[in-house]
Amino acid sequence: MSLTQSGTAPTTAGSSAHDRRARLIVTGADQPGIVAAVSLILREIGANIVSLDQFSTDAEGGRFFQRTVFDLTHLNARRPALEATLNERLSSRFGLAWTLTPAGTPKRVAIFASKSDHCLLELLWRHRRGELEMDIAMVVSNHPDLANDVRQFGIPFIHVPVSGDKKEAEQQHLRLLKGNVDLVVLARYMQIISDDFLQDVGVPVINIHHSFLPAFIGAGPYQKAKERGVKLIGATAHYVTKDLDEGPIIEQDIVRVSHVQTAADLARQGADVERAVLARAVQWHCEDRVVRDGNSTVVFR
Amino acid sequence: MSLTQSGTAPTTAGSSAHDRRARLIVTGADQPGIVAAVSLILREIGANIVSLDQFSTDAEGGRFFQRTVFDLTHLNARRPALEATLNERLSSRFGLAWTLTPAGTPKRVAIFASKSDHCLLELLWRHRRGELEMDIAMVVSNHPDLANDVRQFGIPFIHVPVSGDKKEAEQQHLRLLKGNVDLVVLARYMQIISDDFLQDVGVPVINIHHSFLPAFIGAGPYQKAKERGVKLIGATAHYVTKDLDEGPIIEQDIVRVSHVQTAADLARQGADVERAVLARAVQWHCEDRVVRDGNSTVVFR
Amino acid sequence: MSLTQSGTAPTTAGSSAHDRRARLIVTGADQPGIVAAVSLILREIGANIVSLDQFSTDAEGGRFFQRTVFDLTHLNARRPALEATLNERLSSRFGLAWTLTPAGTPKRVAIFASKSDHCLLELLWRHRRGELEMDIAMVVSNHPDLANDVRQFGIPFIHVPVSGDKKEAEQQHLRLLKGNVDLVVLARYMQIISDDFLQDVGVPVINIHHSFLPAFIGAGPYQKAKERGVKLIGATAHYVTKDLDEGPIIEQDIVRVSHVQTAADLARQGADVERAVLARAVQWHCEDRVVRDGNSTVVFR
Amino acid sequence: MSLTQSGTAPTTAGSSAHDRRARLIVTGADQPGIVAAVSLILREIGANIVSLDQFSTDAEGGRFFQRTVFDLTHLNARRPALEATLNERLSSRFGLAWTLTPAGTPKRVAIFASKSDHCLLELLWRHRRGELEMDIAMVVSNHPDLANDVRQFGIPFIHVPVSGDKKEAEQQHLRLLKGNVDLVVLARYMQIISDDFLQDVGVPVINIHHSFLPAFIGAGPYQKAKERGVKLIGATAHYVTKDLDEGPIIEQDIVRVSHVQTAADLARQGADVERAVLARAVQWHCEDRVVRDGNSTVVFR
Repeated sequence: MSLTQSGTAPTTAGSSAHDRRARLIVTGADQPGIVAAVSLILREIGANIVSLDQFSTDAEGGRFFQRTVFDLTHLNARRPALEATLNERLSSRFGLAWTLTPAGTPKRVAIFASKSDHCLLELLWRHRRGELEMDIAMVVSNHPDLANDVRQFGIPFIHVPVSGDKKEAEQQHLRLLKGNVDLVVLARYMQIISDDFLQDVGVPVINIHHSFLPAFIGAGPYQKAKERGVKLIGATAHYVTKDLDEGPIIEQDIVRVSHVQTAADLARQGADVERAVLARAVQWHCEDRVVRDGNSTVVFR
Repeated sequence: MSLTQSGTAPTTAGSSAHDRRARLIVTGADQPGIVAAVSLILREIGANIVSLDQFSTDAEGGRFFQRTVFDLTHLNARRPALEATLNERLSSRFGLAWTLTPAGTPKRVAIFASKSDHCLLELLWRHRRGELEMDIAMVVSNHPDLANDVRQFGIPFIHVPVSGDKKEAEQQHLRLLKGNVDLVVLARYMQIISDDFLQDVGVPVINIHHSFLPAFIGAGPYQKAKERGVKLIGATAHYVTKDLDEGPIIEQDIVRVSHVQTAADLARQGADVERAVLARAVQWHCEDRVVRDGNSTVVFR
Repeated sequence: MSLTQSGTAPTTAGSSAHDRRARLIVTGADQPGIVAAVSLILREIGANIVSLDQFSTDAEGGRFFQRTVFDLTHLNARRPALEATLNERLSSRFGLAWTLTPAGTPKRVAIFASKSDHCLLELLWRHRRGELEMDIAMVVSNHPDLANDVRQFGIPFIHVPVSGDKKEAEQQHLRLLKGNVDLVVLARYMQIISDDFLQDVGVPVINIHHSFLPAFIGAGPYQKAKERGVKLIGATAHYVTKDLDEGPIIEQDIVRVSHVQTAADLARQGADVERAVLARAVQWHCEDRVVRDGNSTVVFR
Repeated sequence: MSLTQSGTAPTTAGSSAHDRRARLIVTGADQPGIVAAVSLILREIGANIVSLDQFSTDAEGGRFFQRTVFDLTHLNARRPALEATLNERLSSRFGLAWTLTPAGTPKRVAIFASKSDHCLLELLWRHRRGELEMDIAMVVSNHPDLANDVRQFGIPFIHVPVSGDKKEAEQQHLRLLKGNVDLVVLARYMQIISDDFLQDVGVPVINIHHSFLPAFIGAGPYQKAKERGVKLIGATAHYVTKDLDEGPIIEQDIVRVSHVQTAADLARQGADVERAVLARAVQWHCEDRVVRDGNSTVVFR
């Protein structure tokens, strides 16, 4: 039995509509004829385009991004043929990259948390309400504190302490994750992720952190923001890359504050923004709406 | 000399890039193969797709909307051939409607105003800064008050008093507008537009009005909003239809207020939202980003 | 044992700081000398003013509102003397109304719900995190569906079916509420409250409902909003008065939507705004920040 | 004739209401009895308190801030007596600082600009509409480009080139400003202000600059923001202190962007936020709503 069978989101219930719907992401160097090529391929196989978003960074020599959602009866049976055609007519002819994702197969997600529960619970709660198109395979934490909260949702909670040697914990993480998940979400996981782990895990990692205008670097950012009279408190969800907290931004938002709030109040309001921003970022990623473009993102909303 | 030559927006300066760029809007009943047909037509003629937005209200039996921006060298010379192809392969074969607009030909706009200047000046100012892709052919007002403000921008100001018989004024409006403008913007024009005028003028009419949650109907809305303790003041820009203030919404926004504001303060803040919302609505319309869908709109932003 | 002892919010833990803190609300016809009178009373008794917010609707003949938070050692013992002074020097001399609330005694709250859980769970969750300064005495519902969700939080869930005769259910409600709660919150409770109930219950009742610009009246508001192309979806929290959904507004907010959202999506986003707006309204009410002014409110944030 | 007589804002027209209204700002170490002392002083002299905002950073040992607006007939004649009382009973007894400002005397403001007109024109325009309670004494620029735009508003434009020796230009600035203005606003003035100038000018200096979450330091911030996929573009208005761009924040705001905007689009949208934020900051300063608290601010809105 695989861990992911514990997922109970309504979206996993393969309705016939979901069974024939798929999402095709195409990226590469822009050149005339790509849109025509993709739409011809889909027309020839009898697919019906449900939505199409296309974006090019520049009319001349830009980078090309296209997200196409389509319906195709007997999707599973005809998928190998479709993939062969995409390889031949997009990859070989145009040098484009593409991914094809059946909408009926939610992404399998591991959520990492520490002691703060606001981001974690927001994801669990929205998932239970059927608002997040994903299977939550497991919650991993370096602290045992949130075990009961998580297990109430019928989701495995795995405590992996991180002490002296971080390598050991990361090895255990990799054993849990490899082959079992398509995405890792750091929901206020207060441990630094090593470059080795990032490379080995082989799936995208999304992180959430507080943000301000301007930035306040180092420890105690809310206190520093308070001391400067900051009027906006924000949060940023981004993909994790080697440069800590410098990866491509998926979503951001802010809330207005004033002098009456203490630094603790700012942190509490920041937590509210964090959970909203992380939930949107995870949802968009799981719906294949976010395409990376170097250290930036294209988000088809 | 046509009135529209008074437009001085930088966007009208036909750069070579603008000379070959066009926007194609396609609408109609959704059916398999439309996207492929459009992109094939553009590929065959050698056009390069710059951006493509597509939306369908439903995968089965929905209404289809597509906005395609493309570059085509010698656009003007090859436009008749392209239009013939679109007629044959979109209109005849699929029963679709389409419009083709060269980006280098800004829409000619008449702005109607009364005594309030905030919406009018916002449009004139943004236009002078090159932020609105349009030619302002004239400003028409039922009051002479704003003549100097308008003429400072080098734009004709025409005073058409509206007294006892509104018909007469509307006849004069039609003589000014017919054949000279592609859009009428009501920038706080405080006269009711007759159905006859709407039909005769033959171009879209955009209006701006205040909005609240919930609505406060009738006279003195800001006073009524104040008496209910409203916390948000808003504005709505929409196309004018026979049902006054009930036409398709293009854009809306709000500003937060509190008990310290008087009804006059609310009106002042409402004015700020109105000018921002109207400017966005006009800009999007002029860039062919707004497509009507019955009494609703599709806005490709 | 009273129901309210089930409250477990950290705020109920009488810290010494909370034991000496109180909030004084003073309202009435504005007249010179009120602020001086209040501050003299507090100075004479040795209280230390922590914060003071004052608002007058008009400098001449306006209505006066003041919220004063102060610290007073041995608050409980000296409260009778303070109240006698307030009666003599504010009520008798100025004809003002006042309420004195020890901050260490959270309001006792009953939450009414039906089948929707988003507003209810937001309140329960924030309460458990110590973010809402109140005791949740009970959750009352006309449906049994949410019993388990509520009892997980250690809060009594009482199922009061509402069938043919609504009177009977309301009688049962009154037996549960009278003397036990200081506030009733309708968290998407889908039954109309009778005027008799409102009068008999004797405590404020807060409601949440969706709001749009402009309003869409009657059934299916999200569908109607969709058909008009609405770009903002909102929610309003207000006190319930005889005129259904027309009571004084406490808080409002909106979220931006576009044509890509279905009516069901709009409803889902509306639910998100509803839970945020209701939580803020309840929090501010419980901190005595909301003062009614006829059919409007003064909210000292 | 002084330069400031060129101001034509409606607010300068001394209505009788304005003639008797004043604003009192009191700051210092919090201690019991301050509010009572202030309100007693005002009651004794026969003043009527219109609004009172008070804030203390901490109930014990905090810093105290109070803004009181009051009406007093024959204000000018009785001002010396009132000031003597404030000195005796607030300064001497409590060690508090205070400022008393008649509302009928608008602050005299110099606006510094360079080549960008968006912030400057926003201020001139709002001033002409009577929305900014100030007299614009002059516009100073290191470039001649905006002279005509400014003079159309009937406001002196003074071109002070800044070349090799910045000292010389600053000496000319000081000759223009000393004794003539109460506030300097840097409306996208692209020259660094020296510490010497800041000390010598003797009045507050407000600056506006773009802001992001997170910050992008150095040249080309919009390009850097674009390359990271930033979703929010913001602006910050602050008092200028020795640490460039690190002074107390008065106001901030943001606008949402996406991948479709180019770096130039981001800069344009940033300009819109800048002008809105700067206008609010200047308005609040001129209404004595902003009180500095170390490197932070208390803003009584």
